[in-house]
Amino acid sequence: MFNPKEEKDKIIKFIKAYYDRYDLGGVVIGISGGKDSGVVAGLFAEALGPDRIIGVTLPCHSKATDKNDAQKVSDYYGFKMINYDLTNVFDAFKEQVNLLGNFTEEELKNSDINLKPRLRMASLYYTAALYTALTGKTYIVAGTGNKCEEYVGYFTKGGDSVSDIKVLADLTVDEVVAIGEVLNVPKEVLYKAPNDGLSNQTDEDKLGVKYKDITKYMNGEPLEEDVYQKIKKLHDNSKHKFNIPTYRK
Amino acid sequence: MFNPKEEKDKIIKFIKAYYDRYDLGGVVIGISGGKDSGVVAGLFAEALGPDRIIGVTLPCHSKATDKNDAQKVSDYYGFKMINYDLTNVFDAFKEQVNLLGNFTEEELKNSDINLKPRLRMASLYYTAALYTALTGKTYIVAGTGNKCEEYVGYFTKGGDSVSDIKVLADLTVDEVVAIGEVLNVPKEVLYKAPNDGLSNQTDEDKLGVKYKDITKYMNGEPLEEDVYQKIKKLHDNSKHKFNIPTYRK
Repeated sequence: MFNPKEEKDKIIKFIKAYYDRYDLGGVVIGISGGKDSGVVAGLFAEALGPDRIIGVTLPCHSKATDKNDAQKVSDYYGFKMINYDLTNVFDAFKEQVNLLGNFTEEELKNSDINLKPRLRMASLYYTAALYTALTGKTYIVAGTGNKCEEYVGYFTKGGDSVSDIKVLADLTVDEVVAIGEVLNVPKEVLYKAPNDGLSNQTDEDKLGVKYKDITKYMNGEPLEEDVYQKIKKLHDNSKHKFNIPTYRK
Repeated sequence: MFNPKEEKDKIIKFIKAYYDRYDLGGVVIGISGGKDSGVVAGLFAEALGPDRIIGVTLPCHSKATDKNDAQKVSDYYGFKMINYDLTNVFDAFKEQVNLLGNFTEEELKNSDINLKPRLRMASLYYTAALYTALTGKTYIVAGTGNKCEEYVGYFTKGGDSVSDIKVLADLTVDEVVAIGEVLNVPKEVLYKAPNDGLSNQTDEDKLGVKYKDITKYMNGEPLEEDVYQKIKKLHDNSKHKFNIPTYRK
């Protein structure tokens, strides 16, 4: 049986051991206002203390509510928060795109959606290198992806998939929530339906499957055939994100 | 013995097989004006034909000479070239950094250096998704890193390290040049000392070791003790770029 308190303690121990081993300074966490980054923040706050955490909000044509929820996380755990408004950065990039030709919104849709997490990743690493320079101790970037998302490839290659330490990658969405309850992650954050903060759709709407069903799939539990096939397809189609071919391998 | 003609043929075969297997459309290659991207372009031009290649120049506060050299590559192989000037994108990001505080150039140095390859990666993937939408067939991003660079971690995590297919990752710098000769990569490009186009230093100046010595190290050939130790340290220090810890693994 999954014991969230014990599991939380193990993760804390893992983080502490990793920081001790490499004599690291602190961590940079992108705080979206969603549950995953809330739980990651809670874990690092307990492992390292709030003074070694830099939370980063990264709005990019975003709704203000997400920033308020992010603030709740940093207020509760007491770590510093900085903000990059990526709206102008995104727009400056789009100006270059406009010079290439006249494309429809539909043609640019996938490109635009995935540009944002890539700009966010660049911002987090920018911050980590800056705090490393300021403090003389290495800051690293925490990943916030969970096991369900990784399994179906629900992340942007070169975006939210890039990190230096992954503390949720072995946990299903239910397990993340259970650990968040132990850590007292603010309720508005912990029980919010996950979404990318860009559209009005939840992540589950976009994926076309429920996280609960992904968990069942991974556990080998029975599922309706169409749900089973959908998850299998998502998983199979995501393999190219993990294995980059070289000609000898 | 390394036979560049045979090796080139094998890589071409590998590329063709990979494109056939997944029914892919084409490739996006960042063309820097340096040897690696020149050789990658030559390989894909032979494997797929020029019509399935999109070359991308990505100046960012860059010198014009690099763009001219990039043009020579696209002229020789006859593929389409598009340009994103990332200078304004970079500057829009720096405006956000300025809002965070007054930092010295030295404090921002590492952050700034690595921001550029990350913006470039984002641009290449933007382009791949766009051409996928325009053509209805998947475009992927070619990596241009060679075996020597990979071995010592001379790349930016989340930047030039992110790609969908790596055709030079098994080849030392000397082998890349030898294959470039078979492919008739323009001489000004093939024999240029590799540099990042950002500073006046060559890559070897910055690394503090010669690519030839990295090759010797990988082959187990004798080296002066200080050179040996330098390469060993670079290699050991780069391991964190490949292995991201999760708490169960």
